[in-house]
Parts: sequence; structure tokens; C-alpha cells
Amino acid sequence: MRIILVGAAGKAGRAVHELMEARGHDIVTVGRTSGDVRCDISDPSQLARMWERAGQVDAVVSAAGEVPYAPLAELGGEDFESAWQQKALAQINLVRTGLDHVSERGSFTLISGIPSRDPIVSGAAAATVNGAIEAFVRAAAIEIAPRRINVISPSVFTESLDDFGDFFPGFVPVDVADVARGFQRAVEGASTGEVITLP
Amino acid sequence: MRIILVGAAGKAGRAVHELMEARGHDIVTVGRTSGDVRCDISDPSQLARMWERAGQVDAVVSAAGEVPYAPLAELGGEDFESAWQQKALAQINLVRTGLDHVSERGSFTLISGIPSRDPIVSGAAAATVNGAIEAFVRAAAIEIAPRRINVISPSVFTESLDDFGDFFPGFVPVDVADVARGFQRAVEGASTGEVITLP
Ligand SMILES: NC(=O)c1ccc[n+]([C@@H]2O[C@H](COP(=O)([O-])OP(=O)(O)OC[C@H]3O[C@@H](n4cnc5c(N)ncnc54)[C@H](OP(=O)(O)O)[C@@H]3O)[C@@H](O)[C@H]2O)c1
Ligand SMILES: NC(=O)c1ccc[n+]([C@@H]2O[C@H](COP(=O)([O-])OP(=O)(O)OC[C@H]3O[C@@H](n4cnc5c(N)ncnc54)[C@H](OP(=O)(O)O)[C@@H]3O)[C@@H](O)[C@H]2O)c1
Repeated sequence: MRIILVGAAGKAGRAVHELMEARGHDIVTVGRTSGDVRCDISDPSQLARMWERAGQVDAVVSAAGEVPYAPLAELGGEDFESAWQQKALAQINLVRTGLDHVSERGSFTLISGIPSRDPIVSGAAAATVNGAIEAFVRAAAIEIAPRRINVISPSVFTESLDDFGDFFPGFVPVDVADVARGFQRAVEGASTGEVITLP
Repeated sequence: MRIILVGAAGKAGRAVHELMEARGHDIVTVGRTSGDVRCDISDPSQLARMWERAGQVDAVVSAAGEVPYAPLAELGGEDFESAWQQKALAQINLVRTGLDHVSERGSFTLISGIPSRDPIVSGAAAATVNGAIEAFVRAAAIEIAPRRINVISPSVFTESLDDFGDFFPGFVPVDVADVARGFQRAVEGASTGEVITLP
């Protein structure tokens, strides 16, 4: 398959890239600062140019997104707004604008994260936008068929424990190699509207 | 209890107002175009003025919010943005700014809606922001204790079937009087972090 992979240079993205290449897929990598196509997917005009350059694909995969972590009393309206713009609306717009660029039975796979279902202190903005993405995916699935859409919702990555481990006390982490398998399942499988929770 | 009720003049809000007054609570009504205090809760400066005028309360109740309904292919980025601003971020900011104005064991009760769990055609923006609100509530609950926060997530109102019934084929509707009981349960009960689904 021809697959566009947004966030290909990130922790999760690199693992997805490696596995998908090993599976023989043709990958077009995207990021703001590296990749075959440079694009900030939170900017609608850059997104339009990205599709012009990328052309038709069989799968759209996103492992991108940034969200601020802080105690609720310290999160301002602008933190929720930035989480929404950078992680939720950016991925929603990737899907909306990608509908005409994906093959007839192609798929979209987005990324969210565990705080939407298992709350953590300092994770209110992350939880909020992850909940938005997951509900969007369930809703979009029934309207875009036979094209498919799913979302990978991982626990903290084993490879991120040094940075974020303290936010997730006692959470079972997930190796990015297993996150990549989640993406593989979504892309090569047949499910739609699914929130693939990991581990 | 002294209760601030945002959206008091709406379909759900009127039913909440009636039940809460019958229960002997002291209600401060809020709306953009009517109410004891006029305020657009999607505007942070108006929200600050609202709290100055409203003072301390025991419960903050919101039955407000507007979301566009349209097929996914016709929903633009601006529709998702407006749903986010008017329904999700507005209620999140109501909570954030209300933390210092609610009593020590006071509560917040927000409103979402069924499309986040049971998708409907034309409901992708509604689903998205309802999912955001529900995840925010689960996350905020663990940080604001002993203050509480819950969200009422109703099916289509019986009283709205003429307007919205076609979007919800075969869905069991809920009378606004029962929506009001959901708010009563959240305000007078002891639960927190709960998504109260109705019917
Ligand atoms: N790390 C964890 O433990 C964990 C756990 C669960 C979920 N998640 C979620 O998984 C996703 C990836 O996490 P990660 O740790 O792999 O992050 P990461 O290492 O920071 O990688 C993110 C990648 O996405 C790209 N990117 C970010 N914003 C973009 C935008 N607007 N447009 C285009 N590309 C963009 C970045 O590249 P450029 O900077 O060059 O654009 C980077 O390559 C995030 O959404 C995160 O919230 C992470
Ligand atoms: N109707 C349904 O079947 C249904 C089902 C499930 C969930 N819901 C949700 O329940 C909520 C209430 O629905 P409804 O049918 O009762 O709506 P409605 O009749 O339109 O009432 C909404 C009320 O909220 C006020 N309001 C709206 N935006 C506001 C803002 N930014 N700041 C302050 N006040 C605001 C409006 O008054 P002003 O215009 O004067 O501000 C109005 O009184 C909505 O969030 C809706 O999505 C509705």
C-alpha cells in the first residue's frame, strides 16, 4: 500500500515507519521539520499543499500531536485551545481534507492516548482532546464507509517513561513496537470506528 | 443550595429551573439574551464579569451549548471549531473559572449528548465535542475533589423530536423532565466524574 505517515520522525512515528516498511508498504513521511513532505497539519493551507504534493494514498496514518500537561488549576483556556488545535482539530482536518485523496476502501488511523479513559493528575487537556478524537472516529466511521477510520489509544510509551513516567504512576507502559503493531492492525485489518487501546 | 444555572431559558434549562426551584434551591439564571446575569460563557471576559456579579455558589449547572449538524463531507474546520468554542471550551472555562466561586464541597454539572457514544449521520461535530466534555469531566473529577463534577449525556429530547428527530432514527428520546432529574441527581447526590447517560 501507499501510506502517508504524519509524525514519522517522532517516537511512535519511527516505530510505525520501521514496521510498515518491513511490511513492504510505500511510505510518504510528513512532519513540520523533516520528512518527504514538510507540513504543519494544524495549518489548513499547509494541509492543502501537502495533499497536492502527496497525491493518492491507500492509508493515512497520524502519529503526531502535542498537548500541554499541568495541574488543572494551572491550565489556562489557551492550553486547552492549543491541545485542541495541535492534536484534535489537526487530525480531524487531516481526515476531512484527505477524504478525496484516499482510495475507495482506504483507511485513516489517528492517535489519541490513555488519559481520556484513565484520568491522571495534570492530564485534563490531554484527556479532553483524546476524548474528542475518539468520539470523532466513532462518528466519522459511519459516514465514510467503505473507507475506514480507527484510532490508536496507547498508555505511556516505555520509551517515554523517563520524560512522562511520573504522570502515570503504576500504569502498564507500552513499547512503541507494539504501538506500531496497533497501527498495522488498523491499516491492514478491516475494522472501523474502533478505539484500539494499548497495551 | 445556591445554584448558578447557565442556559436557564433553553429547553433543558427551563425544566432544570422548574425542578430545582421546586426542590427549594435558590437559582441564579444565566443566558446570553435573558437571565439574572447576561453572559456569553464562550467569551472569557464576560465569564469573569459573570462571576463578579454571581458571587459564591454551591453548584454550577450548565444546560447551554450549540453545535452544527451536517454530513461530514459538508462540515468545515470552522464547524468543528465553533462546536468546540460554543459547547466544549465554553463549559470547560465555566469550570476552570468557577473553581474559586464554588463552595468547598460544591459541584459542577455540564451537558453533552448521546452522539459521542452512539454515532449518527450528520453528528460528527456534536460527537467530537461531547466526547471532549465527557473526558474532561472524568479527568477534572480527580483534581478538584472534594468538589465534584459530572456530565449529563442525554438522548434527543422528546420536546426536540420535531426539530431533530430525523437525525436520531429509532433512538429512545428522553423527556426534559427526566433530563432535569439527571441534573438533580448530580447536584444533590455524591457522585463525581460520572457521565450520566439518559434515558
Ligand atoms: N509519548 C507517549 O508516552 C505517548 C503516549 C500516548 C500517546 N501519545 C501521543 O502519541 C503521539 C506521538 O507521541 P510521540 O511521543 O511519538 O511524540 P513525538 O516524539 O513528539 O513525535 C511527534 C511527531 O509528530 C510531528 N508533529 C507534531 N505536530 C505536528 C504537526 N502539527 N504537523 C505535522 N507533524 C507534527 C513531529 O515532528 P515535527 O516537530 O518535525 O513536526 C514529530 O515527528 C502524540 O499525539 C502523543 O500525545 C504519546
Ligand atoms: N435538544 C436536544 O434534543 C438535545 C439532546 C441532547 C443534548 N442536547 C444539548 O443540551 C444543551 C441544551 O439543549 P437545548 O435543546 O435545551 O438548547 P436550547 O433550547 O437552544 O437552549 C440553550 C440555552 O443556552 C443558552 N446559551 C447558549 N449558548 C450560550 C452561551 N455561549 N453562553 C450562555 N448561554 C448560552 C441559550 O440562551 P441564549 O441564546 O439567550 O444565550 C439557551 O437558553 C445543548 O448543549 C445541546 O447540545 C440537546
